Parts: sequence; structure tokens; C-alpha cells
Amino acid sequence: MTEKTVTIALDAMGGDHAPHTVIAGAALAAKDLRDMRFLLFGDQNKLAPLLDAGASGLENYTIHHCDDVIAPDQKPSSALRHGKQSSMAQAIQAVGEGRADCVVSAGNTGALMALTMFGLKRLEGVSRPAIIATFPGRERTVCMLDLGANVEADAHNLVQFAIMGDCFARHVIGLDQPKLGLLNVGSEESKGLAALREAANILRDGEIGVNFHGFVEGDDIFNSTVDVIITDGFTGNVALKTMEGTVRFIASLLRGFLRSSFLTRLGLMLTGGAFRQFFRQIINPGAYNGAVFLGLNGIAVKSHGNANAASFANAIKVAASLVHADFNEHIREGLGRLARKSAK
Amino acid sequence: MTEKTVTIALDAMGGDHAPHTVIAGAALAAKDLRDMRFLLFGDQNKLAPLLDAGASGLENYTIHHCDDVIAPDQKPSSALRHGKQSSMAQAIQAVGEGRADCVVSAGNTGALMALTMFGLKRLEGVSRPAIIATFPGRERTVCMLDLGANVEADAHNLVQFAIMGDCFARHVIGLDQPKLGLLNVGSEESKGLAALREAANILRDGEIGVNFHGFVEGDDIFNSTVDVIITDGFTGNVALKTMEGTVRFIASLLRGFLRSSFLTRLGLMLTGGAFRQFFRQIINPGAYNGAVFLGLNGIAVKSHGNANAASFANAIKVAASLVHADFNEHIREGLGRLARKSAK
Repeated sequence: MTEKTVTIALDAMGGDHAPHTVIAGAALAAKDLRDMRFLLFGDQNKLAPLLDAGASGLENYTIHHCDDVIAPDQKPSSALRHGKQSSMAQAIQAVGEGRADCVVSAGNTGALMALTMFGLKRLEGVSRPAIIATFPGRERTVCMLDLGANVEADAHNLVQFAIMGDCFARHVIGLDQPKLGLLNVGSEESKGLAALREAANILRDGEIGVNFHGFVEGDDIFNSTVDVIITDGFTGNVALKTMEGTVRFIASLLRGFLRSSFLTRLGLMLTGGAFRQFFRQIINPGAYNGAVFLGLNGIAVKSHGNANAASFANAIKVAASLVHADFNEHIREGLGRLARKSAK
Repeated sequence: MTEKTVTIALDAMGGDHAPHTVIAGAALAAKDLRDMRFLLFGDQNKLAPLLDAGASGLENYTIHHCDDVIAPDQKPSSALRHGKQSSMAQAIQAVGEGRADCVVSAGNTGALMALTMFGLKRLEGVSRPAIIATFPGRERTVCMLDLGANVEADAHNLVQFAIMGDCFARHVIGLDQPKLGLLNVGSEESKGLAALREAANILRDGEIGVNFHGFVEGDDIFNSTVDVIITDGFTGNVALKTMEGTVRFIASLLRGFLRSSFLTRLGLMLTGGAFRQFFRQIINPGAYNGAVFLGLNGIAVKSHGNANAASFANAIKVAASLVHADFNEHIREGLGRLARKSAK
């Protein structure tokens, strides 16, 4: 079977180490996955030298010059008003106009969210888009959504998140019957906010076709209790940032500890490289390095701002796998089942 | 100046290692702080042998026999209905009836919350009680509330939490002008839920007498950006459990890593004791080991369920310091300033 060529629009100017890591990441991804074509949006004067004479190893690409760049601290509202000519907005527009199958950016998250919402619009039937990402769990990868696309979510939104998360776990992670959990402050059925209890009641219904485990708590995120954790974007974002902050704090404690005595310094010397690798692993836990914006007319993947070439390549692969899986078609089907169920 | 004797009601049967750690913790605390008297609530047959002939070193105590114990997994509703004769409820009642100044328990958190709310009632002017705890930050201790007394909080509740948290940071941690932050999904003023923006507007008013920094995010918890983090009990509880889960996950990764190769095993052997100490430090980050229930007619402190004698002693000291500081009087004053401000 030959797979169709995937056309990937890249915001070549987004991220701390752009455009170098973007080009190098694309070249790495192209080695692993064939039949990819890249549309590179950015400053031609910066991109051309990196690509000339095959220096990057990247072959199947076109450069689309953009004068403007979204700044890392630019507010979403400003990006919407003034950023139309930016590499980010232009890359998104390529997806919106059907010239590309997906867009990947390591740029400003808030701006990317605003520009994709505006440029791609919601998928039919989706009330609210959501951001999903994956984390390494004790036994296996866990997905969590919404990580901040919206600050509030009612029961209906949460159920839609569950269906989108279920599709993601099946078609991107490759799980057969992913277990879903709703993030709450206790695992008993009577706990928590009314919207959560209502969403749980809907999800328990077998006809929706998801494997609903029930409520989970914050310490279940890494416990492999479930495969997909569903929450509103406010709570999800706080949990995500709390995880990141905790990891950095412990890493700093560990560094201090390792340098604290002669024996620990000796131990560090003996194992130095291995410890550096350990730190890299825990500091950057995004197994796939791709936060995916779900529920839009088009695939959009956000890479970490400080991604290196390898992790940017992973974000590209996530985007490509969503395209290959015909991901939005699965969301449409899932939402269709829900709508038929609600109509009864 | 002689300080008044503090009478402390102890739920001697609460916690994983009760009653041993409770008795031993009381004895430790009594060594450091003079003028403490303990009312020990629990099974006389279990307590007496630990105390007989001065075996524990504890002197100033009375035993109050209780037939019943709240089970670790007992639901709050069941504790309220059936737990009146339990050591936990009886210890709380001693505070409610003025026979003790404060109560400390390492038992079931949900039950303790329900029983204290019922047994002590809200302090006049407090709309909703809150749970506060302290965490080690990069530069200094940070306090966070509400950690789960209520799942929802409106702007008015959040402002009251801010005033109670401010009192705690001043009179328990000993800070002069504690910096307060509202937990949100971004630091810009326009971000987040309406209740948060409204609370921020109220807190920015100088007349309330708190030093309000603005919005903070989940990764600010350990960053020492502020001294007190204010949030609703749902978000606070998720953040707390996420922290705990992240710490345990990283500790397990680190353990696996340390055993992964000859060199790391050698390093571990060299530094073995130090690493064990490091693990203990990160796994049990509660600097004070006391979650305090604020806003009640009486002082109630929750110790970790798996507290050892030293950390149970810390919880007792927190309770005693709240009594010595005449803590609830400060809350009354702060709420009074707020009420006068609102009345204008």
C-alpha cells in the first residue's frame, strides 16, 4: 500500500531555536517517514542559507516568504489583529485553504491557539476545541485534555473532550480500548462539581462507545490508572504547569544534592553522562513533544518552544500520524454517535 | 512573659501508625514547647500501655476513652452520621466545648473536614472555611489555600481565602508583608475565569491591607514568586495531588535510574545514605506537616496519615503556634476590614 503524500506547513520562525531546529527537525522526520512535503513559512533570507545546496538534507520543500514573525510574548489578541502576515498565520492559512494537510509550530502557544481557532474554525459539531498532550506514565503513556484551549467546560464539553481524547488514544497512541477518567477531587461518584457528575453519567452509557473508568485524581496522572484524563482547560493547564514546576524544582534539589558532598560529587563524576540524560528525560517529559489542537477543521500541532531537532521531528510525526489516521473523520463519527444518543 | 498553657486535643487513633506516632509525637513536641497539655482521645487499652510508667516521656496528659475510630476509607457522610463516638469527633468536640484550644488528627481527611465543620462551625463572617498547607519553595516556604474544603469559590470566597492566607503567612510563617497571588492560567490581567478577575480587582485595593502580587501559574508554586497562593478547593486539590504524584513518579524514575547500570549502582552505594535522605525529603515535602482548617471556631490541624513522630510533632507545633498567635482574632480583624470596605 502506498500512503498519500502528506503536505506539512511549518512555521519556520517559531520557537527558541528557529529556524535551525525547524529545518533540522523536518529533515530528521523526512528520513523516518517517506512521502512528506514541507511548506516552509518564514524569512527567505534566513531559510535559504540553511537549505542551499542540500546543506540540511531536506529535499521535498518549498519556501514561502513571510515578512513578519509572532513574538514569543505577543498577546493572542495582538497576534489576531496584527499577525496576519506572520509565518505562523500563513502556515495556518495554508491548512485552511487546503494547500497543506497540517501545520506544526514551536511558536507562542496562545497566539497559535488564537490563530488556529480563527484560521481553521471549529469542526462541525464540536462545541469547543481542546488541547491534548501526552505524558510518560508509570506503565504507559497517558493523554490529557483540555490543557487550556478554554477556561470553562460544561458537562457537554467534557463529554466531547472525552470522545476526542478517545479518538486520539486509539488512532495516535494506538490503544484498542483506551480507559478514560474524569479529573476530580475524589474518586467517589458523589464528589466534585455538578458538571463532572453529569458528564460521568453520560459517559457511563455504553452506547457512546468509550471505556469510561470514572473519576481520577491529580496523582493518577502518572499512575497509569487510565489512558486518557479529561478535564476543563483551567484545571488542565494548572495541572500541566504544576507538573512542570514540580519537575524543575526536584531537578534543582537533585542537582544541589549531587554537588553537596565529596561522595555525591564522586558519584556524579562516575555517572555524569547518565545523570545528564536522566535530567533531560525528566525535564522534557513530552514523549511525543506535541500538544495537539483537537476539534478544528485541520490538524495543528504545537511543539515545545525549546524543542531540539529530534523533538521537533516528533511533533511533525504526530501531525503526520493524525493526517494518515484521517483523525478528524473519527472525531466526526464519535460526535455523531453522541448526537444520535442525545437525540433519543 | 509566661505563655498560657495550650490544651491540645489529639485524635490518638488517627493515622497509619497510630497510636504510637501520636504519643511519640506529643512527647517530642512537649520537649520543644513548654506549657502544653494533651487530651488523648482513643482506646484506653491501647493508649495506657504506651503511657504507663512514663514509657513515652509524655507527662502532662489525660486519656479520654473512645470506643470508636473513623476508618481511613470512611466517607464523610458516614463519619457525620455514625462517628459521634469516634476519637476524632470526641477530640473535635473538646475544642467545640472549650475544653481544648486546638485539635490535631492524622486520620481520614474528608471525615476530619466534615466533623470539624459540623463540630466547630464557621467563624463569624467567614463564608467558607478553607484548607491551607505549606510547601518548600525555591527560596522560601509557600502557603496554598484552599486545598479542598470546597469545590467551588466565587470572587468573595477567594478574597476571604486571601485574607485568611495572609494571616497565616504573617502569624504562623512569620512574614511581614507576605506577597499574595491568585492561581490562574496566565499572568495577564485579562486572563482566566470571571471570579478570578473580580477577586483580583478587590485585592488590588490597598485598604484591604494585603500585598497582592497578581495572577500566578501552576509553575509558580515552587518558584517563590509569591508567599501565598490562593485558589478554589477544586483546583488547589488537583494541584496538590498532581505535585504529590509528580514527586512520586520522578522518585521512582530516579530509583530505576540509580539501579540501571554498574556505575550508577556504584554511585548509589557510595552515597546510599544521602540518597535515602534525599528521597525522604522530596517524598514528604510538607515542611510543617500540617494542613490547617481555616475559618472555623477553633483550631484544627490535619497531619499526614503516614506521619512519623517528628512530623506529627510538627503538626502539634503548628496548632500550638496558631493558638499562641490568637490566630482567629487576626482573621476576624482582616474580615472586618474587608466588610467595612465592602460597605462603602
